[in-house]
Amino acid sequence: MRATVLVRPKAGILDPQGEAVETSLRHLGFEVGGARVGRVIDLEVDEADGARAREQVEAMCEQLLANPLIESYEIVLGEQRS
Amino acid sequence: MRATVLVRPKAGILDPQGEAVETSLRHLGFEVGGARVGRVIDLEVDEADGARAREQVEAMCEQLLANPLIESYEIVLGEQRS
Repeated sequence: MRATVLVRPKAGILDPQGEAVETSLRHLGFEVGGARVGRVIDLEVDEADGARAREQVEAMCEQLLANPLIESYEIVLGEQRS
Repeated sequence: MRATVLVRPKAGILDPQGEAVETSLRHLGFEVGGARVGRVIDLEVDEADGARAREQVEAMCEQLLANPLIESYEIVLGEQRS
């Protein structure tokens, strides 16, 4: 089953990359605010059952994909790869 | 309006970060394949109209957020920030 994980800096955590993106966009003339940059991880899990696939991906997030102290994660199952 | 942009390496483009994630997950005992790592950018656009907001974010992607030669992007409007 295909899984997509979105890992984002938690609210209140400094995000220099997001600040740089926001500053650059404003220099280009776009009126934007609150830019934050995180990671998207697409992967194929060897598990057909949705609930068990989600459990596995949660374990991956806790152990490797995210730093739970400073990052939140969101799991989307069955997303098409673009 | 809140916008979320997913920027991913295109198919066929080398993705060393994705390879490292996949190798590490396998070492941890997870049976995964095809891991790819990209960026997620959340931002607030000063535009209430959905169609115009999307146009603006597309322009941001073309000019700054993505490298169209090697990356694809996907725009989601109105997504809640987690």
